[in-house]
Amino acid sequence: MGSIWGNLLKLSIFGESHGPGIGMVLDGFPAGVRLDPDQLAAFLRRRAPGRAAHATARKESDRPRLLSGVLDGVSTGAPIALVIENQNTRSGDYAALRFTPRPGHADYTGQVRYGGHNDLRGGGHFSGRLTAPLTAAGGLCLPFLSSHGVSVHAHIAQIGEICDEPAARHAGGPALTDFPVYCREQGEAMQRLIAQAKEEGDSVGGVIECTVTGLPAGLGSPMMDTVESRLSSLLFAVPAVKGVAFGDGFALAGLRGSQANDALGVDRLPPTNHNGGVLGGITNGAPVVFRAVIKPTPSIARAQRTLDLSTGQMTDLHIQGRHDPCIVPRAVPVMEAAAALVCTDLWLEAYGYANS
Amino acid sequence: MGSIWGNLLKLSIFGESHGPGIGMVLDGFPAGVRLDPDQLAAFLRRRAPGRAAHATARKESDRPRLLSGVLDGVSTGAPIALVIENQNTRSGDYAALRFTPRPGHADYTGQVRYGGHNDLRGGGHFSGRLTAPLTAAGGLCLPFLSSHGVSVHAHIAQIGEICDEPAARHAGGPALTDFPVYCREQGEAMQRLIAQAKEEGDSVGGVIECTVTGLPAGLGSPMMDTVESRLSSLLFAVPAVKGVAFGDGFALAGLRGSQANDALGVDRLPPTNHNGGVLGGITNGAPVVFRAVIKPTPSIARAQRTLDLSTGQMTDLHIQGRHDPCIVPRAVPVMEAAAALVCTDLWLEAYGYANS
Amino acid sequence: MGSIWGNLLKLSIFGESHGPGIGMVLDGFPAGVRLDPDQLAAFLRRRAPGRAAHATARKESDRPRLLSGVLDGVSTGAPIALVIENQNTRSGDYAALRFTPRPGHADYTGQVRYGGHNDLRGGGHFSGRLTAPLTAAGGLCLPFLSSHGVSVHAHIAQIGEICDEPAARHAGGPALTDFPVYCREQGEAMQRLIAQAKEEGDSVGGVIECTVTGLPAGLGSPMMDTVESRLSSLLFAVPAVKGVAFGDGFALAGLRGSQANDALGVDRLPPTNHNGGVLGGITNGAPVVFRAVIKPTPSIARAQRTLDLSTGQMTDLHIQGRHDPCIVPRAVPVMEAAAALVCTDLWLEAYGYANS
Amino acid sequence: MGSIWGNLLKLSIFGESHGPGIGMVLDGFPAGVRLDPDQLAAFLRRRAPGRAAHATARKESDRPRLLSGVLDGVSTGAPIALVIENQNTRSGDYAALRFTPRPGHADYTGQVRYGGHNDLRGGGHFSGRLTAPLTAAGGLCLPFLSSHGVSVHAHIAQIGEICDEPAARHAGGPALTDFPVYCREQGEAMQRLIAQAKEEGDSVGGVIECTVTGLPAGLGSPMMDTVESRLSSLLFAVPAVKGVAFGDGFALAGLRGSQANDALGVDRLPPTNHNGGVLGGITNGAPVVFRAVIKPTPSIARAQRTLDLSTGQMTDLHIQGRHDPCIVPRAVPVMEAAAALVCTDLWLEAYGYANS
Repeated sequence: MGSIWGNLLKLSIFGESHGPGIGMVLDGFPAGVRLDPDQLAAFLRRRAPGRAAHATARKESDRPRLLSGVLDGVSTGAPIALVIENQNTRSGDYAALRFTPRPGHADYTGQVRYGGHNDLRGGGHFSGRLTAPLTAAGGLCLPFLSSHGVSVHAHIAQIGEICDEPAARHAGGPALTDFPVYCREQGEAMQRLIAQAKEEGDSVGGVIECTVTGLPAGLGSPMMDTVESRLSSLLFAVPAVKGVAFGDGFALAGLRGSQANDALGVDRLPPTNHNGGVLGGITNGAPVVFRAVIKPTPSIARAQRTLDLSTGQMTDLHIQGRHDPCIVPRAVPVMEAAAALVCTDLWLEAYGYANS
Repeated sequence: MGSIWGNLLKLSIFGESHGPGIGMVLDGFPAGVRLDPDQLAAFLRRRAPGRAAHATARKESDRPRLLSGVLDGVSTGAPIALVIENQNTRSGDYAALRFTPRPGHADYTGQVRYGGHNDLRGGGHFSGRLTAPLTAAGGLCLPFLSSHGVSVHAHIAQIGEICDEPAARHAGGPALTDFPVYCREQGEAMQRLIAQAKEEGDSVGGVIECTVTGLPAGLGSPMMDTVESRLSSLLFAVPAVKGVAFGDGFALAGLRGSQANDALGVDRLPPTNHNGGVLGGITNGAPVVFRAVIKPTPSIARAQRTLDLSTGQMTDLHIQGRHDPCIVPRAVPVMEAAAALVCTDLWLEAYGYANS
Repeated sequence: MGSIWGNLLKLSIFGESHGPGIGMVLDGFPAGVRLDPDQLAAFLRRRAPGRAAHATARKESDRPRLLSGVLDGVSTGAPIALVIENQNTRSGDYAALRFTPRPGHADYTGQVRYGGHNDLRGGGHFSGRLTAPLTAAGGLCLPFLSSHGVSVHAHIAQIGEICDEPAARHAGGPALTDFPVYCREQGEAMQRLIAQAKEEGDSVGGVIECTVTGLPAGLGSPMMDTVESRLSSLLFAVPAVKGVAFGDGFALAGLRGSQANDALGVDRLPPTNHNGGVLGGITNGAPVVFRAVIKPTPSIARAQRTLDLSTGQMTDLHIQGRHDPCIVPRAVPVMEAAAALVCTDLWLEAYGYANS
Repeated sequence: MGSIWGNLLKLSIFGESHGPGIGMVLDGFPAGVRLDPDQLAAFLRRRAPGRAAHATARKESDRPRLLSGVLDGVSTGAPIALVIENQNTRSGDYAALRFTPRPGHADYTGQVRYGGHNDLRGGGHFSGRLTAPLTAAGGLCLPFLSSHGVSVHAHIAQIGEICDEPAARHAGGPALTDFPVYCREQGEAMQRLIAQAKEEGDSVGGVIECTVTGLPAGLGSPMMDTVESRLSSLLFAVPAVKGVAFGDGFALAGLRGSQANDALGVDRLPPTNHNGGVLGGITNGAPVVFRAVIKPTPSIARAQRTLDLSTGQMTDLHIQGRHDPCIVPRAVPVMEAAAALVCTDLWLEAYGYANS
């Protein structure tokens, strides 16, 4: 158990940050979907590092290679396997980590879990780099969803203390996919905050909001296979995500029932969307809206105190290497990818492969 | 798909609010665990309605009947089946709901999902009453966990706008299980707020925080089977839960990495716990701490506008029957139950049935 | 893990032979299916003991009670829970079994598996009685399949050394559901053999052949979710089944490719069916035909040598109680039930709940 | 759904016969297992084509490339991904197959299943070549099992009408892994039969028997997760397998209970093994013994009648390319691999990753 997810559509992710390659197998993907490699590469580039001042300087092509499941640009129905070769790995940077686990990272928990055999270089299987194959898997789902009128858009709702206005949750709104921070008003202020955190040898977190429009009412199942259960189980696979909420999320605690209830309008669609498009675990025809909080990158340049497992004494840790002061912008397409995977799974459950 | 959850330990929940009975099957439960029916009944009573001024007047014994898996008070290792007969159902109250779906409820989504065949009486399978078997399942896990030094405690962190102080997240602290609102300081103010909402024919939401102490480091798996993924997938099975967060949760967006990173101390335990006891999806030895937001009860006494599906016109809806102005206090043991189920599953994954 | 099966349709079985009750939960069953309790009871009676000279004298009503998922005789789409109360249990018969495990039974393996906590009375969870809820689950699927033109018929192909002619595998043929042995020519000879085995204090095994007609081509998935994988994984849940084969089964070893290949005819259906209606794990439009071997009932009246675990010495075991000299006739509807469950799961995978 | 299998250990297989590559991801594999690439390559060579007169002339290196989960020759606990590049593919051979589906193959069922988008070249995802990654996955499990005293050996029990003596089922016996036909007495006669079939432009099937020794009693779970259910669900993933049986298998139909019952001896091990080491779905300490029937290779040189889907008329089909007259010898390690995967899964269920 560990790195496989799904029901009708099953995703298996593999790889370690500094191993030969990372990748994924997507099982149950519908046959007959036209897949554009350039479109997929462009989607993946939104996640890739090294694009901007606020991102890590590590350069990666991250151009995935398809091994199966696609013939002449169209999905065959067989599992789609995709590999991204690892390049430009500087393993020497991480040698000291075996005895001095980085605070906020999986270095220590991974060692306990795997009896000390886990690959620690670059975080190994726990690296944020593993979100690349997840993003690729979601990127394959986007044209399928698009052909059924479903679209997925995420944007940055918060960086540090700076909040942007929430997306118009029931109208879909314009695509917010412009680099670099996918936000409406506060983009420049957010960039300044990220630059400042970098200067201080620190990092900063944020919140991403994602909206799925075009899903019909009636998708999902009650209780353990709710839209929320499926989405959250995949979103929490992303290493930095520490919270997931739907609609008004934690603000619902402060609302009265008369404020939070979404009623149907005469077009059978609710004009309000406090519940994020999901009631009883099932879509109600409104956009599905969720938020995920991304914790500040644990790798920071400034010295940190940590335990030296070899001596049993506390010591100063200086993390070498190249790290993002803020991974929130790069996580935006990852959230879209997770949403796309879940929506494809929901679709297949409702309509079957024979109708997809 | 829908109402089955789990890996090593699998939970299947069934029933409809006004059908003959509700219940659950718990598969994979370890053999040899002594189960005290009175203790289980007491745990279930914390979830039961009708105990206080702020709760619904519907009386239910909710005494579960064990059909299998327990012999002479000890688990046999075979699936444990448990049934709670439905009594005191007043179905007449709900007759009008077929054409006028209650805002904020699953009445409409359930009709679409099941082609109009779903049992609408009392919310049917979507009723909050289905949390009773979930609570019972978790209640069975508590003595197993207790025998391994693991304990689970939840308390109310917020009702409406009133927040209570957070639990001491790395020390476990005293049990906060006293009726009625499982809180520290603000209990009386919270009760007044609930009473006020009731008087206004309205309802109010809240936040519950749950803490698991005693789990060793190294439980869980990376990516799709993280502690967070497993917990959230089960917590979102609870109808009113709309957000789940670990450690500092959404507040992590506003922290710097230097503030949010938890480092090991000389005892190999982190003295801080911003990450809720989980790093890389795996326990780090600190208490596992999570929060769930409970939306305000959608059933409220005051009139609401809704669509009449038979006429296509908007109409005034007056919900009859007995409903809680705030279900947060009753949801406290439900959160504990979900945590107990996940922790038992984690335990079995790590140590196997032969060592449990 | 243990007693839950399925993909879209999930079956959870619980109970112990001499506990309060046995039953099942069927999750994912399509909404809107009209279910006739009398038809279900009649189907279950074909599996029930006590109907004929060759069957055990234990009388059971085995009338199942539906707890959920059915309203006014129509499935609601929520999980269907069904309980059969245990009656007429004479536990005293089995007291000696704790130290003298019955040869060919799960008495010893169950004790090792569950650390001695398993319920040994009547075989506990390993009892053939647990096929009653499995049969009930399949019985619920039959009207769903029937509404889609799919029918399921099993018959006895062999009792001891006596073989009956194989069913016409590509034409479906007449229903072979007449009590007592569901066979064509050799019914009387088979009954004499069973009576003779009983007289000798012994038991006898057999083979059942099951045919599913009306399935369209294209159902199933390659590799691990083939029609064969799904069917066999459920058929081997039946305690006495020790072999499963499709089409010509083990006789295929002796055929040449030119004899075993089924080619399409002009109507896109193959006029031969050596492969049992499945090629590459996927239906080809021919009837799905499989055989299962049922081992001779391990409970026999004559004395057997076994180990006395309390003394470490071999001893004579005299099994008390009422036991079938041949359970093959009662297993016929169990095979049909397993086939019906698999076919419903296949259907839902292909067409989804929205088209079922 | 389709090409993912398992519980604790999960196997995902991908690839198409003439696509860029085939491979697998093995998730949940224990950390700390030393893996010898040469040993793995040698195991895979036993399955590879082109080694003998009776095998296809297609040459493949089939040397797998490990992409993840192994560091310095030891498993890290992260998913193990392995890719075998496809070489020496002569796609032109298969061009005519789109309209004239090969009898006994998945050409037609695959087209229906995937709406005509499946890769037909060389059988695509349905090719027997996909057993290479399955074999590799099992090959990785063998050293893990070996370190726990478990060994797996398969041999040919039947080719065409020629049967070899059954393996000594309770003593393990000598390793029967010598090329070319892994049999005891009848090896030469079997080879002559294969050569004769080839000469006739035909093919021949057979039966493989596999024995697992060293498994402790008490592994497995009742009902749907029996040892038999798990093994059969994986064995039927192998395209040519049409029947699976345990112990005496279908011969049990002709035995009396007094003959088929295995009783414990004074060493708590049964001196007989009619039930193949499994009672109630759980190991009893005797070797686990199963047989699988392999149908004759459907690709044969001689002309066959088939439907031309483009004209709706019957036509003569001449299959071009290189094909085995008998794949049974090459399937021997595949059976061992499937057994090794299941036994590793059983082990992890019983003892957990922390004890593996």
